[in-house]
Amino acid sequence: MLTQLKIKDFLRDTEVFSTLEDESLERLSKNAIEINYSKGKLLFVAGDKAQHFYVVKSGWIKLYRETLDGNMAIIDILSSGQIFGETALFESDSYTYSSEIVEDAGVIAFPLHDLQKEFRTNNALTFAMLEYVTSYSRRKEREIEHKTLQSAPQRIGCFLLRLVPSTTSGSIVIHLPYDKTLLAARLGMQPETFSRALNKLKEATGLHVKGATIEIENIDRLIKFTCSACSSEYPCQDKCN
Amino acid sequence: MLTQLKIKDFLRDTEVFSTLEDESLERLSKNAIEINYSKGKLLFVAGDKAQHFYVVKSGWIKLYRETLDGNMAIIDILSSGQIFGETALFESDSYTYSSEIVEDAGVIAFPLHDLQKEFRTNNALTFAMLEYVTSYSRRKEREIEHKTLQSAPQRIGCFLLRLVPSTTSGSIVIHLPYDKTLLAARLGMQPETFSRALNKLKEATGLHVKGATIEIENIDRLIKFTCSACSSEYPCQDKCN
Repeated sequence: MLTQLKIKDFLRDTEVFSTLEDESLERLSKNAIEINYSKGKLLFVAGDKAQHFYVVKSGWIKLYRETLDGNMAIIDILSSGQIFGETALFESDSYTYSSEIVEDAGVIAFPLHDLQKEFRTNNALTFAMLEYVTSYSRRKEREIEHKTLQSAPQRIGCFLLRLVPSTTSGSIVIHLPYDKTLLAARLGMQPETFSRALNKLKEATGLHVKGATIEIENIDRLIKFTCSACSSEYPCQDKCN
Repeated sequence: MLTQLKIKDFLRDTEVFSTLEDESLERLSKNAIEINYSKGKLLFVAGDKAQHFYVVKSGWIKLYRETLDGNMAIIDILSSGQIFGETALFESDSYTYSSEIVEDAGVIAFPLHDLQKEFRTNNALTFAMLEYVTSYSRRKEREIEHKTLQSAPQRIGCFLLRLVPSTTSGSIVIHLPYDKTLLAARLGMQPETFSRALNKLKEATGLHVKGATIEIENIDRLIKFTCSACSSEYPCQDKCN
């Protein structure tokens, strides 16, 4: 288990809290606890009364909503260093999405009340959070753009390019971060649409796929195929998947 | 032309600045100017160095991005009381989208520098902006959900329902806020897809369409048809189009 001191260090390594002063990190960490969950665990359901916000330490966590007719929309799939649940502060203390562990995960749970208290007086924190949410909005705008203007193969291409270090040239081997069914759902595609699109992408760009391993023979070919239908130039700034 | 006093009053009536103290509004308004533009005017282009953020006073303004292969993704269509351009503060002072006047418009231009200065010391403003951007993110998440799970007729139905006062029951006549070509583009549909989808929606829910006037005979039928494929219940909270 992490001590409060280590939790503080961990918080400092996250994108959103990295610029905070030591005392702010200390106040936020003092009532935090580490919890480990197994795959399949439902952490909370949209509408639940919220007590905590979370930072992911390890594993993968799916945020999603369900429609009345039983379909699921994935909002995000999070890994180490990402936060979730904090938006409940702006929604009458209720979670705005459901959260499920999709690969065994460790999370750190922070009382929402401590964050709320900090927001009242700590402008540096409020501003850091504003920057973070603004950048998140930008990624969501990009996702809408891609859903409107990119083909399914291009959207898979974009997902793969985000896994490639931006200095890469020539060929590279990458590994999918989670299984293809989850990836299809993350991209809002039916599994069969995803399979067809992946095949088209292979033909168009010379990818080789073996399980979760993907060999990109010619990165420029993949960029040309994918990024022509995007308003951002490669390498793009909003690189988080 | 608006005086500084009236600009201040106008600012107080916008969603994002409504909770601010009089002195903050005064500081933000003191260097603001009102400008009127005709339809078709390009206000700025994505990547332009940003000097101002804007509040819409009247008319309609389109925010969009263009892809390398020449397609356009509409991010939003704004009307009175909505702000834009402020995100440049978080993107090295460059606008992150282009902006075009789509119906003769009046805007109030505020120096970005004044907003930045205020962010440094005014936690109430930073927090108000955080609430605003969080709610904007929520709307964008909903848009992604609808693009994934709703049919084109349902997405038009959702747009129409957002124009209806939530207390309405039975029948109601509403007017489209802007022309159908723009509406199709706002929803990310080709004009022919939009026409087909509108016809399907008419058949499924008994709508009558005459130009920009839409008669909804039975609001419950439209809600049932549309909102079954949404994770929010009618009337929804993120009601802004």
